Amino acid sequence: RLFKLVSASGCRQVSKAAAKAEVEFDYDGPSMKTTVPGPRSQALTKQLGEIQNVAAVNFFCNYEESRGNYLVDVDGNRMLDVYTQISSIPIGYNHPALLKLVTNPNNMSAFVNRPALGILPPENFPDKLTESLLSVAPSGMSRVQTMACGSCSNENAYKAMFITYRNKERGYSAPSVEDNTSCMINQAPGCPDLSILSFMGAFHGRTLGCLATTHSKAIHKLDVPSFDWPIAPFPTLQYPLEEFVRENAQEEARCLEETEDLIVKWRQKGKPVAGIVIEPIQAEGGDNHASADFFIKLRKIATKHGCAFHVDEVQTGGGSTGKFWAHEHWGMDDPADIVSFSKKLLTGGFYHKDELQADKPYRIFNTWMGDPSKNLFLCEVLNVIRKENLLDEVARSGKALLNGLYALQVQYPGLLSRARGQGTFCAIDVCDDATRDKILVRTRDKGILLGGCGQQSIRFRPSLVFKEYHVHFFLNVFNDVLAEFK
Amino acid sequence: RLFKLVSASGCRQVSKAAAKAEVEFDYDGPSMKTTVPGPRSQALTKQLGEIQNVAAVNFFCNYEESRGNYLVDVDGNRMLDVYTQISSIPIGYNHPALLKLVTNPNNMSAFVNRPALGILPPENFPDKLTESLLSVAPSGMSRVQTMACGSCSNENAYKAMFITYRNKERGYSAPSVEDNTSCMINQAPGCPDLSILSFMGAFHGRTLGCLATTHSKAIHKLDVPSFDWPIAPFPTLQYPLEEFVRENAQEEARCLEETEDLIVKWRQKGKPVAGIVIEPIQAEGGDNHASADFFIKLRKIATKHGCAFHVDEVQTGGGSTGKFWAHEHWGMDDPADIVSFSKKLLTGGFYHKDELQADKPYRIFNTWMGDPSKNLFLCEVLNVIRKENLLDEVARSGKALLNGLYALQVQYPGLLSRARGQGTFCAIDVCDDATRDKILVRTRDKGILLGGCGQQSIRFRPSLVFKEYHVHFFLNVFNDVLAEFK
Repeated sequence: RLFKLVSASGCRQVSKAAAKAEVEFDYDGPSMKTTVPGPRSQALTKQLGEIQNVAAVNFFCNYEESRGNYLVDVDGNRMLDVYTQISSIPIGYNHPALLKLVTNPNNMSAFVNRPALGILPPENFPDKLTESLLSVAPSGMSRVQTMACGSCSNENAYKAMFITYRNKERGYSAPSVEDNTSCMINQAPGCPDLSILSFMGAFHGRTLGCLATTHSKAIHKLDVPSFDWPIAPFPTLQYPLEEFVRENAQEEARCLEETEDLIVKWRQKGKPVAGIVIEPIQAEGGDNHASADFFIKLRKIATKHGCAFHVDEVQTGGGSTGKFWAHEHWGMDDPADIVSFSKKLLTGGFYHKDELQADKPYRIFNTWMGDPSKNLFLCEVLNVIRKENLLDEVARSGKALLNGLYALQVQYPGLLSRARGQGTFCAIDVCDDATRDKILVRTRDKGILLGGCGQQSIRFRPSLVFKEYHVHFFLNVFNDVLAEFK
Repeated sequence: RLFKLVSASGCRQVSKAAAKAEVEFDYDGPSMKTTVPGPRSQALTKQLGEIQNVAAVNFFCNYEESRGNYLVDVDGNRMLDVYTQISSIPIGYNHPALLKLVTNPNNMSAFVNRPALGILPPENFPDKLTESLLSVAPSGMSRVQTMACGSCSNENAYKAMFITYRNKERGYSAPSVEDNTSCMINQAPGCPDLSILSFMGAFHGRTLGCLATTHSKAIHKLDVPSFDWPIAPFPTLQYPLEEFVRENAQEEARCLEETEDLIVKWRQKGKPVAGIVIEPIQAEGGDNHASADFFIKLRKIATKHGCAFHVDEVQTGGGSTGKFWAHEHWGMDDPADIVSFSKKLLTGGFYHKDELQADKPYRIFNTWMGDPSKNLFLCEVLNVIRKENLLDEVARSGKALLNGLYALQVQYPGLLSRARGQGTFCAIDVCDDATRDKILVRTRDKGILLGGCGQQSIRFRPSLVFKEYHVHFFLNVFNDVLAEFK
């Protein structure tokens, strides 16, 4: 069942199975034994249902048997995984480099002795940060803070922006007695009425600070108290972008104008915008793209109005757009003041420019502040990305995927529309959400795991070891499924 | 240098070294080679300073060489650790049971394939939850949700309380169109003006929701926008508690009365209290205790006013009070609606009563929702706690520690006061914060690592393998240090 490092030559196009496995320890195709979830998954879901809400559980996995691009479930079904744990598996399942890391006795201590990183870091911590996160630092940034997850990363990034904004307002002098006493009871001026500007359709996490900037689905926000912060429209573009340059530029200009109006309005309201947060591609909100020109102009607006500019790369970061960071597609030397990450980076955290560093200890702080064992894994992941030129592979696979989606939407005009993507970070819309959901199930029945996003989109989120032959295999199966819905 | 499972007999009291090592793989005493931080720590701090704010870094550690109760630094200094990474190391460094777990090939997959637990859990997830977290579930609770850290645990616990409160208000009917549309722009009624009541001196974390309930130090809260939520006084008691029963009861009655007033007042203000959050012992805020009677009455007030009762055991949970949960000291069958945890539990999360479970999927959700590899470690930690009767050991060590502190405050009346504790979760006050800080440094110079808390307290947070002979060794050294300050 397992292929091991087959040569790249001799590729032939086949309809129902991947032609070969270039990926070390990949399977040669899906294998479906039961409907999904199968009986074992159903029994486990019932068991877990006694402990937790299981309404979101798809099925249970046999991670031990999963390999490369293939996720194996507890009923022995093997699926090509084009969703990869909500886009969080960088180089496939059970990659040999990662397994080797765990068995290396030198690494044992990192797993069993989790330190309080902010006060007692391990000896190799600076080196490992340099080897891992700093080796892929965004342009203009040489400082990084690790955190345990995406939400904590954004929460602390927001705090860094608030702290910096107020320090600037105070002229970098010490806080007043009134600052220090009022903050203890949640009141201004110590807890100031500052805001973060976010965009409609954005997803930045689900803790209370993040949630005030998340606007993708009502169910995420319903019943949770929030802040009166400004929400700008995100451009609603027509795809393919290059065919609607003029119309899209107009739409982007409208959004930028409204953004600037909101900054002024909220300042007048007494809730100045300390920072602007945006995803390079709105993911959870429906894979909404904007042009490099839009981001370049937005960054300028932020600077003009003294707002920090925070690019949230939790989902886009790590290579799936064909560049390590999606913001690299903007071609800027100074793309942001803060870039947050998590998911494929295996650790959460955020990079920031020097001036965004908190002035005192214990302001950006918690017990763990990340997990050094995740930094070890990230070092290996980056080694694999470099050694196997995975960003080039993503660009190649992504081109094949997007071209395939373009062809399919021509073939099924009533069913599919708005194919879009960067690298393998692609999406396509289905005529309605019910049909979208049915297509996802039928595709899974045929051994391919996809995810939805937005109202009626399908999002493609393979890992970085998803090769061109995986794309062709997927397109063939997808075509068969779509034919059923024609 | 390493002792291995020496018999318990033949103990003799010595002044500068622990008499024996009952703990497997413990050292036999501290060994100081340099001042702390030593030259290697200083060089690494400088290196890390190029990447992060390092003002809170004490020194760099050699975790590989650390064992049991002893933390070894990069300059070869070996210290008895009575702070244990801000109270987050349950059974000492490099415990053989945990090392064995990492080398077990069956566990490799849990380390390298981190799943999106909410949608694709691993096969053993329900069993591991049952073996670990459910085996120590608080009275009346059989449901638990894991999270990545303490702040995320509390944030999601608050969300669960808000969701439950609003569902009750709606009579468990579907949210209105207005609910669903208004929440998307952060407005009521979808984002309702609900509140969480917390206590002055509390620490519940540093993300924006948690931070609105944290009131221990200004530096944690300064410059961060907050919510107008009610803050009740936490009793300021006189110690030892048993000598001031009448005075303390009066103080507690005052606080309870004010709490109830605040609940009424905030309801009238249109910001009803959905939940009350409290620590069984305020830790970061200065190790402030309250009686079982206080908590019993507070829990009744919560029920009376329809507020959920959330006990935050992030620092108190895991055995250091002599019971697995500090709230067990209250002797209640129904101590809480929610109990949150992290630190010594190695994974964050919260238990909750059935009615606190969110009604729909994706309301309490994020990508990782914890980390199954941490559940594996927790299973082993709990096995060790049971096998080695560590809760009994903690009670024994704690009694020796508290009695020793009582004796020292009699001996040094101008210097020390207010010795207090439960199990080894002890603290003592120093005359002022400058002297406190000097004592901490001098004690560290002599090879014992302690932590501060509150304005002028020293907190003791050893791991659960801290034995009576470690206590005596500590007391001897501490006595020597205090003599310098007399």
